[in-house]
Amino acid sequence: PDWCVEVRDGIMQLERVFKFKNFKEALAFTNKLGALAEEDFHHPGILTEWGKVTVTWWSHSIKGLHKNDFIMAAKTDDLLS
Amino acid sequence: PDWCVEVRDGIMQLERVFKFKNFKEALAFTNKLGALAEEDFHHPGILTEWGKVTVTWWSHSIKGLHKNDFIMAAKTDDLLS
Repeated sequence: PDWCVEVRDGIMQLERVFKFKNFKEALAFTNKLGALAEEDFHHPGILTEWGKVTVTWWSHSIKGLHKNDFIMAAKTDDLLS
Repeated sequence: PDWCVEVRDGIMQLERVFKFKNFKEALAFTNKLGALAEEDFHHPGILTEWGKVTVTWWSHSIKGLHKNDFIMAAKTDDLLS
């Protein structure tokens, strides 16, 4: 499964879980994604845990999903390739 | 409010939200906490968002809270002082 749409507190969000082999690699991905977020001035939720990172994109201003969130999701995938 | 006990999927967890003035400072705290987690070999959930970090401690092995989680919560607070 890739990106899923989740509704939280009435807000539609794009979410995907990325798996890693330990905490260190998960945190490294979080930092890569953080750099992308700063560059594009759009910031996701990034849940870092041992061996996985859950990424959540949505647009705060419209309390939902905008085309931009799908673009950011694709860019997130590109970080791994 | 400091640390709260939350129950998620039947697992008791210690949780606290730390506020920051932007994404960069939030991510810097995430990395500090990540270093502590690696050092102590106990890994929390760390949700990094714009201006805030939500930290969740629990013990995977017992699916709940252990004395160690309270120690880690105190060490998390110390990162800010």
